[in-house]
Amino acid sequence: MSGRLTVIGLGPGDAAQVTPEATAAIAAATDFFGYAPYLDRLSLREDQHRHASDNREELDRSRAALEAAVSGRHVAVVSGGDPGVFAMAAAVCEAIESGPEAWRQLDVSVVPGVTAMLAVAARAGAPLGHDFCAISLSDNLKPWDLVERRLKAAAGAGFVIALYNPISRARPWQLGRAFECLRDVLPATAPVIFGRAAFRPAERIEVMGLADANPTKADMATCIIIGSPETRVIDRDGRAPLVYSPRSAGGLSR
Amino acid sequence: MSGRLTVIGLGPGDAAQVTPEATAAIAAATDFFGYAPYLDRLSLREDQHRHASDNREELDRSRAALEAAVSGRHVAVVSGGDPGVFAMAAAVCEAIESGPEAWRQLDVSVVPGVTAMLAVAARAGAPLGHDFCAISLSDNLKPWDLVERRLKAAAGAGFVIALYNPISRARPWQLGRAFECLRDVLPATAPVIFGRAAFRPAERIEVMGLADANPTKADMATCIIIGSPETRVIDRDGRAPLVYSPRSAGGLSR
Repeated sequence: MSGRLTVIGLGPGDAAQVTPEATAAIAAATDFFGYAPYLDRLSLREDQHRHASDNREELDRSRAALEAAVSGRHVAVVSGGDPGVFAMAAAVCEAIESGPEAWRQLDVSVVPGVTAMLAVAARAGAPLGHDFCAISLSDNLKPWDLVERRLKAAAGAGFVIALYNPISRARPWQLGRAFECLRDVLPATAPVIFGRAAFRPAERIEVMGLADANPTKADMATCIIIGSPETRVIDRDGRAPLVYSPRSAGGLSR
Repeated sequence: MSGRLTVIGLGPGDAAQVTPEATAAIAAATDFFGYAPYLDRLSLREDQHRHASDNREELDRSRAALEAAVSGRHVAVVSGGDPGVFAMAAAVCEAIESGPEAWRQLDVSVVPGVTAMLAVAARAGAPLGHDFCAISLSDNLKPWDLVERRLKAAAGAGFVIALYNPISRARPWQLGRAFECLRDVLPATAPVIFGRAAFRPAERIEVMGLADANPTKADMATCIIIGSPETRVIDRDGRAPLVYSPRSAGGLSR
């Protein structure tokens, strides 16, 4: 039996957003590697094996998964959201590049999923409706000054900005500093969406102006979207506001 | 009966990537508005009504859909990919903002989907593995100099760049000009992925250096991903290369 490895995106967390492709890939795998809370979402059969690991061990987890695949197992590496966005697909590629030749010969595939910013955007309206970017606020793997440079470049050029990994116990001040950077560039009224656990029971979507954006509103399960100067908020009686970024920009419209 | 409107993302085009949430929303709707090729993907029942329109009539289509919803219909507005990324969700919000008060009182929701860049990235490896942006190359609704400014800002700050709407009969030169802009900022070896019809029968994924990127390789069904200076290509004997952007940047690693 020749092994293979599939990196699977489980989407934002509701079972209704797991694609049929992901469901089929899960059914076909024998061994599951991932961060424990993502593995907890699966209902595995008795003949399927679970290999849970901690949150910050992506490279070791990837190597263990590749070893299992080379030994002939059908391995699934699972991520929340999309595995290609600040998740396991890049870690698996890194491990392959620095690993033995046999790992390059494996059948490796990636099953995409709905990533967090798309889920939060859907709940808020259409804040990603024009050009946008995604930035991880974690400075575990890149210097903080690079994060600030990217925030300023993106805001200055009119991109909507989605922030992943905004805050954690080990990274308590970075989000506040990011808002400070953005206040130098963006209007105080630029809409900020705190999207926590979108489409899950604990969902909480809050919208406020950049001047009022407070880091204490975020936790590890939050994805934050910061509008551009063109992003708009439609207030509605008795309903949550709709936040959207018009498709037109720079004074052009139809 | 009170009407409602759901904007639904159908994903990249393979039925295995339509989420169960989207499938349920399609089953619940009575009237379907969208660009004809997206409506063609649906198998509608006899009691479900199809309202196809041309590609560039998003605002008129949104207004017609909102009118039908206000009249009590259960309306679905369908998009390929994710409806919030260069698609119908923003157009519906625009129509609501400029429309009658009754449109603000409607039950409006958005069902997210797998957007094109995630599908192309999955087929290529993990090119969106670090900070990235998405830019529409269409200058129908924004001035071309804004597109150039965003391309240069993003490339200069080290973002991976996904290009949507790269080329069409009416916009033949923009992609070539975009590559020229990027060659001023990025190394000639920066990997470029032309991802056509990812996960569909006509799929074609091509990887080359920026120096060799030729606009004739793209069409309307192509999403292009341009790596940052840190993006890497893993060559593999007898298999397609893996393209990925390491999670670490700026000299940090683990």
